[in-house]
Amino acid sequence: MLPKSHADLLTRTLFAHVGTSRPDGQPQVNPMWFEWDGQNIRLTCSTPRMKYRNVQRDPRITISVSDPDNPYRYVEVRGVVKAIEPDPDGAFFDRLAARYGLHLDDLPDRRQRVVLVVEPTGSSYQ
Amino acid sequence: MLPKSHADLLTRTLFAHVGTSRPDGQPQVNPMWFEWDGQNIRLTCSTPRMKYRNVQRDPRITISVSDPDNPYRYVEVRGVVKAIEPDPDGAFFDRLAARYGLHLDDLPDRRQRVVLVVEPTGSSYQ
Repeated sequence: MLPKSHADLLTRTLFAHVGTSRPDGQPQVNPMWFEWDGQNIRLTCSTPRMKYRNVQRDPRITISVSDPDNPYRYVEVRGVVKAIEPDPDGAFFDRLAARYGLHLDDLPDRRQRVVLVVEPTGSSYQ
Repeated sequence: MLPKSHADLLTRTLFAHVGTSRPDGQPQVNPMWFEWDGQNIRLTCSTPRMKYRNVQRDPRITISVSDPDNPYRYVEVRGVVKAIEPDPDGAFFDRLAARYGLHLDDLPDRRQRVVLVVEPTGSSYQ
């Protein structure tokens, strides 16, 4: 499903530009942390955010990751949010923050955190 | 409409992650060159590409640009493709390529090039 030649773009500590569909159908795209376990992509989100409402309504989601060393090299992973898991203590958030070199004791929306579990359904790359 | 504080993200030579909707509604997101003239965003595209078909069907489009010096700083520009202009000699493509430091004499799809003229309708930023 995902190209081995571009696997590094999913394992390196890069930002994904994540696309969902707003209620009116306009695409929403913004940079997010992510984690790839070889099978699924996991994102952290908080429940008041539009992205959370978007994927509740339409679970289709697409991420685009570019190689900072060569911006013409990228992978697009299309998928579906197959589960939204509660993260009430922010444990997943903390793990992801640590992956990106941050430690946040004071996370205001810690109790509203959820994990978006994305199952890939297709990809494009260059 | 667009935040002055983030105008540099539209004028610097950065890549935009561009979101459109595929025919089945799945978001499509991939990095593209762009040009901002203070009013509209222009993208180069070739007619056999899925993105061209996407915006013909649904002209709503959204771009996300991150600051390479601070990945937590970004702007999302939501808009609509208000015109698709032919670029049969690739003149716009060449101008955009030059902006990104490239010169391509041998552009196979030069005769299939079009300009997507995007009128912003909203933005988000951080």
